[in-house]
Amino acid sequence: MALDAYWASRASLIAEERSLRRDTAYIANLTESEKKAEEIIRKIRAREAKTVWSVEHEEIPALFPGMEFLTARKLIEETQLFKIFRKMPKGGLLHVHLDATVDTEVLFRIALKHSAIHVRVPGPLAADAAFRPLPEFWALPVSQFGIAADIASSDYVGGTWIPLREARDRCSLGAEVFDDWVIGSMRVNSTEAYKTHNSATKVWQKFFSTFVVSKVSLILFKPVYEEYVYEFLRSSIEDGIMYVEARIDFRFKTMIGDDGEDNVDHAQWVETFGQVTDRIMQELKEQGREDEFYRARIIYTAARFVSKEELEWYLEDCIALKQKFPHIIAGFDLIGDENMQHPLTYHAEPLLRFKERTKELGLDIPFIFHVGQTLGDGNCADQNLFDAILLGTKRIGHGFSMAKHPLLMKICRERGILLEVCPISNEILRLTSSMPMHPLPIFFNNGVPIALSSDDPAVFGNLILSYDYYQVLVSSEVSGLMTLAVTARDSIQFSTLEDSEKRELLQIWERRWKAFVEEICTLTP
Amino acid sequence: MALDAYWASRASLIAEERSLRRDTAYIANLTESEKKAEEIIRKIRAREAKTVWSVEHEEIPALFPGMEFLTARKLIEETQLFKIFRKMPKGGLLHVHLDATVDTEVLFRIALKHSAIHVRVPGPLAADAAFRPLPEFWALPVSQFGIAADIASSDYVGGTWIPLREARDRCSLGAEVFDDWVIGSMRVNSTEAYKTHNSATKVWQKFFSTFVVSKVSLILFKPVYEEYVYEFLRSSIEDGIMYVEARIDFRFKTMIGDDGEDNVDHAQWVETFGQVTDRIMQELKEQGREDEFYRARIIYTAARFVSKEELEWYLEDCIALKQKFPHIIAGFDLIGDENMQHPLTYHAEPLLRFKERTKELGLDIPFIFHVGQTLGDGNCADQNLFDAILLGTKRIGHGFSMAKHPLLMKICRERGILLEVCPISNEILRLTSSMPMHPLPIFFNNGVPIALSSDDPAVFGNLILSYDYYQVLVSSEVSGLMTLAVTARDSIQFSTLEDSEKRELLQIWERRWKAFVEEICTLTP
Repeated sequence: MALDAYWASRASLIAEERSLRRDTAYIANLTESEKKAEEIIRKIRAREAKTVWSVEHEEIPALFPGMEFLTARKLIEETQLFKIFRKMPKGGLLHVHLDATVDTEVLFRIALKHSAIHVRVPGPLAADAAFRPLPEFWALPVSQFGIAADIASSDYVGGTWIPLREARDRCSLGAEVFDDWVIGSMRVNSTEAYKTHNSATKVWQKFFSTFVVSKVSLILFKPVYEEYVYEFLRSSIEDGIMYVEARIDFRFKTMIGDDGEDNVDHAQWVETFGQVTDRIMQELKEQGREDEFYRARIIYTAARFVSKEELEWYLEDCIALKQKFPHIIAGFDLIGDENMQHPLTYHAEPLLRFKERTKELGLDIPFIFHVGQTLGDGNCADQNLFDAILLGTKRIGHGFSMAKHPLLMKICRERGILLEVCPISNEILRLTSSMPMHPLPIFFNNGVPIALSSDDPAVFGNLILSYDYYQVLVSSEVSGLMTLAVTARDSIQFSTLEDSEKRELLQIWERRWKAFVEEICTLTP
Repeated sequence: MALDAYWASRASLIAEERSLRRDTAYIANLTESEKKAEEIIRKIRAREAKTVWSVEHEEIPALFPGMEFLTARKLIEETQLFKIFRKMPKGGLLHVHLDATVDTEVLFRIALKHSAIHVRVPGPLAADAAFRPLPEFWALPVSQFGIAADIASSDYVGGTWIPLREARDRCSLGAEVFDDWVIGSMRVNSTEAYKTHNSATKVWQKFFSTFVVSKVSLILFKPVYEEYVYEFLRSSIEDGIMYVEARIDFRFKTMIGDDGEDNVDHAQWVETFGQVTDRIMQELKEQGREDEFYRARIIYTAARFVSKEELEWYLEDCIALKQKFPHIIAGFDLIGDENMQHPLTYHAEPLLRFKERTKELGLDIPFIFHVGQTLGDGNCADQNLFDAILLGTKRIGHGFSMAKHPLLMKICRERGILLEVCPISNEILRLTSSMPMHPLPIFFNNGVPIALSSDDPAVFGNLILSYDYYQVLVSSEVSGLMTLAVTARDSIQFSTLEDSEKRELLQIWERRWKAFVEEICTLTP
């Protein structure tokens, strides 16, 4: 074979493989500005790969692009690339758990404002951080308010509720220690992720415990919940997110109301969510910023661990909420550690019945299942992928182990089943050690539709989606700015919006994208 | 959909995906004993997943099956599963670098026997291990022998050659420190792999340095080389390996002969290798063990970093050796860090010419390229996969990043291009953090032929292939004993042997396999 013929075959083989990718068609029709912007981004990436990610660092033994997020975060924030991506219009945020969306420090500040919120521990708070239990919070009715006390004093009787603000002010270990203890209990830190809990099983234990603290005892208090939803949506908008499908965990049947009574039902949760959304849309409109936010909806999530009989209740509850709030309820999902809890096969019967029921009722409540969030090969969590597809899931939450399944990836490509990929979540939950080990390029090369999401940003510290965008972009030489553009577009295309709404939102995105691209074109790489 | 119909669709979807796997056809025709053995192995695996890999350990924060090899090795050795796999007939060892095959302690003992071997360092050996340089060895002619001295004394003049044995005996830091220093310089230890050098780029630096010590200065001395080849083949046979294609690095044009002169040419290297092989076959025959070893051949490897003009010399050298030793020279390869050195495109011209030349000469010297040994997505090392295939590679060494390439995996499946997968090597070189993150299940599920290999066992400590078998087996619930049987069979089918030889070797393997299976059947799981 002559050299010329060799180069020709090579180009054609590479092109044949790339033809499966969803960004290939988009790249074939770029505007001149897009071409220029792509080039500038690639140059900045190449420069920073050397100037930021290949130098010797005093404290970090090995730097590389896409390395462990919790170790790299400060360095990421200093890069030009990150600063650029903060401004990108990101389309929809399709995979996020409401109760892990707001910065834990902000949540803590919100909680401190409410005198109903109390804290307790089983015994005096230890001076040694290693021996401190998780804090337990609760919003009490006025009649049961506790009295101020030093939670670290040997006089403290384990189990006694102390008003949160007073507990903090009186804590003899100091307010700073108190804050670190509370905030640390709601986050996974780098020592936990990369040392003490460095396995998919172990880190999940810590991950789960953060919810026990924040969700169960702080967020399920309506005054906090309202502020929480507001903070979440406002900060998402600042990050370029234009549309949200938030997963809300409806496991608990009520939350505590303003009066301290545990009687606020699911309809009120959804109603409040809708009211907060409307308020934000109104505020933005008044500021002439209506292009920045389209809407927020809720994916109803129940717990995977419940019995199939109990699941029936949640499915009916979801139907009732959909009937009452058709524009807010977007779909149904099951959550919890797939590796430890019931597989979809266990719930197949009620889930199949739910499909029949919603069909009869003329309701569109697609399944949007969390599945394949595992390192297992052929374990239940991995096999869940088959069931999600057979049950007609509209999208797949995570689908991490999908990379092992060529046939399922083909089905996703052909039927248009999008994977909600959460890169930083996967890394901190130790499904991958770093982004270069992440299967995302496998999904891209197999033409699976992808949207990038942040999953549990309050727990992982990836509080803006730009972090995930950054980690994806610096870990590849194939993917580029246009790959991210396509994922952002797909986050709209594969949302649960009506077709006409998708078109409308896409038009808004295109306007903002054009402006973003023009801004990149003014940069010197 | 009724539940029954659901189960039927599910079974059919899973079966459709599994149909691509190479073990599926084999599993369809198992003997009763094989079925029983498979079941026993799966039971033992499930039991040990709990009793060994899910317990709390005093020193290791997180245990799990397939975890970091250097941390887990002692635990692996104690398992019943590992002890079973020590006895499995493993077929061919297709990917191993001769100069990293023999336990470094054994190499050191061999070196100590030869009075010609000297050692030196740039200055007195430091008491603090952190400040010790790599030892440099050389075999000197009698006329240049050095005198005994304390290499750690402040009187030692940097660069002075000391006879190795005397240097060890006189070392004022003690023989044990001396031994640790020498042996440690030829291995990657767990602190290096998992802490100080924990990235693909950093650990490669340490990896490379081990060769500078062992290969350049110890193994390239013919008396050592001869013993080294013998030790390698004998220990491989003890591990159930029946056939070997060893990569020999022919970068240096000569090695040092018995007389201390640096003039032993490549033909003598190959001839010695052949003689040692013959000797072992003779020994085995005398012991009635001829079933245990079929033959050993050499894959000629040149350095990737040479200029394409220099490469011509090596290609011609390879042709000359093939003409002289047609039964020993099995193929041609290029080695070195793909991420840093010339891509295949750089060498395309001489490589294409080589193909023409060998065709004209009627020689069968297939390319067996190391490619895709990278975490890169679209970098040169990843792109090398396209070139290897276009250049007609017979097999692929590593091909780690092949998981990203659906089209290339399809080509491998259809054209019968086997991937030589080296699980523990990949893990220690930080392409994967652990076996559950390794892309091997992706290769299996895409029907790519696979052989498992140890790569550089002396450096990584995976001195028997059973370690790699073990790590693969415990990281999956799909793969089982029969998956490993198929990889062992494929290591014969995809070897460079003639078809008649393959049939003969396969028959021998089947005899031994049958006995192995029967032995498993006697075990209580």
